[in-house]
Amino acid sequence: MVMYNRITAAAYRLLNQNKHSSFKIAHQRQLSPNFSRYNRSSSTSLAGFRHHCATVNLNQFHASYRWDLQKLSLVQFQNLSLIHHRSFGSVASTVVQRNPMFSTINSDDLIYFEKILGVKKVIQDHEELQTANTDWMHKYKGSSKLMLQPENATELSQILEYCNSRRLAVVPQGGNTGLVGGSVPVFDEIIINTRRMNSIIFFDKVSGVLVCEAGCILENLISFLDKEGFIMPLDLGAKGSCQIGGNISTNAGGLRLVRYGSLHGTVLGLEVVLANGSVIDMLGTLRKDNTGYDLKHLFIGSEGSLAIITKVSILTSPKLSSVNIAFLACQDYISCQKLLFQAKRRLGEILSAFEFLDAQAMNLVLHHLDGARNPLPSAIYNFYVLIETTGSNESNDKEKLEAFLVHAMESSLVSDGALAQDYSQATSFWHIREGIPEALMKAGAVYKYDLSLPVEKMYDLVEEMRIRLGAAANVVGYGHLGDGNLHLNVSAPQYDDAILAQIEPFVYEWTSRHRGSISAEHGLGLMKAEKIYYSKSSETVQLMASIKKILDPNGILNPYKVIPSSLVS
Amino acid sequence: MVMYNRITAAAYRLLNQNKHSSFKIAHQRQLSPNFSRYNRSSSTSLAGFRHHCATVNLNQFHASYRWDLQKLSLVQFQNLSLIHHRSFGSVASTVVQRNPMFSTINSDDLIYFEKILGVKKVIQDHEELQTANTDWMHKYKGSSKLMLQPENATELSQILEYCNSRRLAVVPQGGNTGLVGGSVPVFDEIIINTRRMNSIIFFDKVSGVLVCEAGCILENLISFLDKEGFIMPLDLGAKGSCQIGGNISTNAGGLRLVRYGSLHGTVLGLEVVLANGSVIDMLGTLRKDNTGYDLKHLFIGSEGSLAIITKVSILTSPKLSSVNIAFLACQDYISCQKLLFQAKRRLGEILSAFEFLDAQAMNLVLHHLDGARNPLPSAIYNFYVLIETTGSNESNDKEKLEAFLVHAMESSLVSDGALAQDYSQATSFWHIREGIPEALMKAGAVYKYDLSLPVEKMYDLVEEMRIRLGAAANVVGYGHLGDGNLHLNVSAPQYDDAILAQIEPFVYEWTSRHRGSISAEHGLGLMKAEKIYYSKSSETVQLMASIKKILDPNGILNPYKVIPSSLVS
Repeated sequence: MVMYNRITAAAYRLLNQNKHSSFKIAHQRQLSPNFSRYNRSSSTSLAGFRHHCATVNLNQFHASYRWDLQKLSLVQFQNLSLIHHRSFGSVASTVVQRNPMFSTINSDDLIYFEKILGVKKVIQDHEELQTANTDWMHKYKGSSKLMLQPENATELSQILEYCNSRRLAVVPQGGNTGLVGGSVPVFDEIIINTRRMNSIIFFDKVSGVLVCEAGCILENLISFLDKEGFIMPLDLGAKGSCQIGGNISTNAGGLRLVRYGSLHGTVLGLEVVLANGSVIDMLGTLRKDNTGYDLKHLFIGSEGSLAIITKVSILTSPKLSSVNIAFLACQDYISCQKLLFQAKRRLGEILSAFEFLDAQAMNLVLHHLDGARNPLPSAIYNFYVLIETTGSNESNDKEKLEAFLVHAMESSLVSDGALAQDYSQATSFWHIREGIPEALMKAGAVYKYDLSLPVEKMYDLVEEMRIRLGAAANVVGYGHLGDGNLHLNVSAPQYDDAILAQIEPFVYEWTSRHRGSISAEHGLGLMKAEKIYYSKSSETVQLMASIKKILDPNGILNPYKVIPSSLVS
Repeated sequence: MVMYNRITAAAYRLLNQNKHSSFKIAHQRQLSPNFSRYNRSSSTSLAGFRHHCATVNLNQFHASYRWDLQKLSLVQFQNLSLIHHRSFGSVASTVVQRNPMFSTINSDDLIYFEKILGVKKVIQDHEELQTANTDWMHKYKGSSKLMLQPENATELSQILEYCNSRRLAVVPQGGNTGLVGGSVPVFDEIIINTRRMNSIIFFDKVSGVLVCEAGCILENLISFLDKEGFIMPLDLGAKGSCQIGGNISTNAGGLRLVRYGSLHGTVLGLEVVLANGSVIDMLGTLRKDNTGYDLKHLFIGSEGSLAIITKVSILTSPKLSSVNIAFLACQDYISCQKLLFQAKRRLGEILSAFEFLDAQAMNLVLHHLDGARNPLPSAIYNFYVLIETTGSNESNDKEKLEAFLVHAMESSLVSDGALAQDYSQATSFWHIREGIPEALMKAGAVYKYDLSLPVEKMYDLVEEMRIRLGAAANVVGYGHLGDGNLHLNVSAPQYDDAILAQIEPFVYEWTSRHRGSISAEHGLGLMKAEKIYYSKSSETVQLMASIKKILDPNGILNPYKVIPSSLVS
């Protein structure tokens, strides 16, 4: 309860990353006009339905699994210049030591920055710095004395060239909406804020290619495109604050991934500035370009540790007019999987969301979330699935969705279901899925994990966690089933190290054993830099460090993050 | 004519890369049952139709354009160990010098390789080597004395570790279907053939994730998935020979890109072996994983110059049952663009191909291609467009396509059109688009260019080329309009250096000036390594070279290719 009180309504909006947003709802104008209820009336045989894996040579696959858990050594505790960051849901506090190779800012530095930027872009105001030093969840707090706000790549290039020569560490900061302490200083790093680079440069309605500066706020891009009849391939709850450069630096996932894929597929080009000040122009606008290594991918998801993004070219999609939303009940997890399989096949080209929650999540929502109402009140089911379709033809889409639902009912995959008939019903369906984090926080202490796992294994972890924790806690599973992204949450009356010790490192080890990812969409930042070996082989991490060394030999870009400290000299 | 005679029927099949294949046709079972003809009957006003660019700050965009054409220096001619490769459609022969740092194979090397691989995987047979030394177009021919066929990453690791320590250069070879001399030795490099790594390891029907070895032939994967009700996100004419590892190494584009996007979006994981023998396990099967740099992208499209791919994880899609094909005539190029714009909006979720050809291409096909018949014989139009839709519901798709076509006719975007009613008509429509390369070769000498350009500029190049060449040659434009990929072809009675000098470097400079790509989907290989600066900034190329140096410090992996010789020590 204390936690929830600390989070304001505005902050809560940001918290709703990865969930459906009010904006998206606001465009659901053409919902199916009749509200339909389906009740399972027959038990059509499931015989002949094949699911799971067609395993051709599974032994060979398992044999290749050898991520190096031995590398998971604890960081060395040292006495000098230590900062302790309390990470909710981690066994130990993260202990980081300031790198003594870095200089501290002096008056000559300030004179230089004011000379190249002008006074107003060199921020030393205590209040502004206070905000910029703190992440929005107030988990991480740095002590930077300086924020610079370059207006273009040339100014940024001058800044970085200087900082590199002076060994002044920097932290790139966009909307500062990250969840892993990646966008705030750890010590006294200079904050390089990208907000002044916020122009839309070019939009081509034929190809749908948008070129803009990195500091454009995502919501502004969404609004701009809306007027042109297009949508961004990316949408997330933090869109009112987050910037496209930050989205790309962290490879944000969000709500549209199941339909439009990851940013590695939709980002066509980037301009970045390296630590030494080199401006790298990879700002192509082409869907096809096989002239050498496609280096832009290095900077997508590297969390500002290899370069700072200054311009972006991204492929946008035409906005489609017809949206339908169904809320369904399934008796077991295998039915959810089969439903996903069927949805991909029968709704393939119009499927735009496939979200799931378990009965525990539903119970929490119904007990703690204002205005939440069960669309399927006749019974409590074990699982609920929210399906959204988006297409170009209302009657076709509705017909397709209804045929899919009838089939799902007849196949007993779905026990009950409701199809939203208007904006209000659509909103109430999404309210349940979106309201889970709020309900969890109202229920007490919560330990949160953002995991990618093979869909068929995903819920096993929730069930194993329930067995481990017994009556001590309420284990809740929900997430983007269509993307294989589980939000595992453990709810307890209050924080308790005994519970935490039961969860970690078990949850990371389990995820690693099933070749999952311990950070599906939030990145590593400061919070999980030392946990990278759970999801990456030691050879891969070594290679990451080698590439970091080439691009940022003095390690001035976003230090203490992403790369384990043992590999940073 | 001489060229065409040299290319056998089997080879011709391979030549049809990037075009619709017989396999794809074979699945067009559910074509629309009625053959419909549309004729323009009204001239509905186009007022209010907005097209082209919504330019917000174009000056800034143009200002950022500064690719370094000064770097386009000719390679130095030297007298020692020179090999001249005649590249059709290039001003000068490519002159390459053997790197004297590389060792030559001795008997101890052979003993070592036979010890680790066994005799049968160490190939010294003259005939086998003759084939492996030659690319399928017989443009490039190496003189390797040794081909190795490792069976797994462990064997490959031992080979590369040894070659690296001995400074023995190697060339990775999959199906050897490349078009730019990338998959054959230039001198005596050891050929590392991946054909023995050809197991399908794992397929998950819920997620659609396929994990297999790099030597799997694309067509075998397509057949395997077909039985499971899935399709590869990639299809191309060479599928009967090319291997998935080679497809990924060259970032193959092909026929399905407009629908499923590039391999950067669909490849989920890779296992690769570096030059020093390190096996890098990045074989994830997850759609979302934000734990550190996504290094697999470095190896997608790096043409075997950074590592050799041994295993692949790729996202496949459910096979949809309904396919419709329309063949349309447009009076001008702007109508083709508007039609593309409308198709993306009105057919968005079912559009699977949008190809175009000009009147010159159609004339060639009608004159030179056996069995070609104009589906719209009442007049000769300036442009033709082939549209394919693929969806899950036959009647819905047909209705959608027909509504789109009626609208296009009413808007005067389309002057005439035909909708295939059966397999035979669909085949005959695709035969025209696919038959253009054959028709071009029958017509005489041909200079071929594979370019990516902004859609709205694309055809300007064809028209400028016509003005440049006048009556001396027939300039033909066609390609994947939906992907912004132009196949520019210049047809002449015979090869003539005067014509070539009119085409090059003009075509490359024009492409560069419009921020296009001089290799949309074929890669650089040996043929275009020195031309990279037309499409990449000098800083980017420098960065490529730095990364090459880290991953392959002795430069043993596919030397003389991709990276300009001036940057390779």
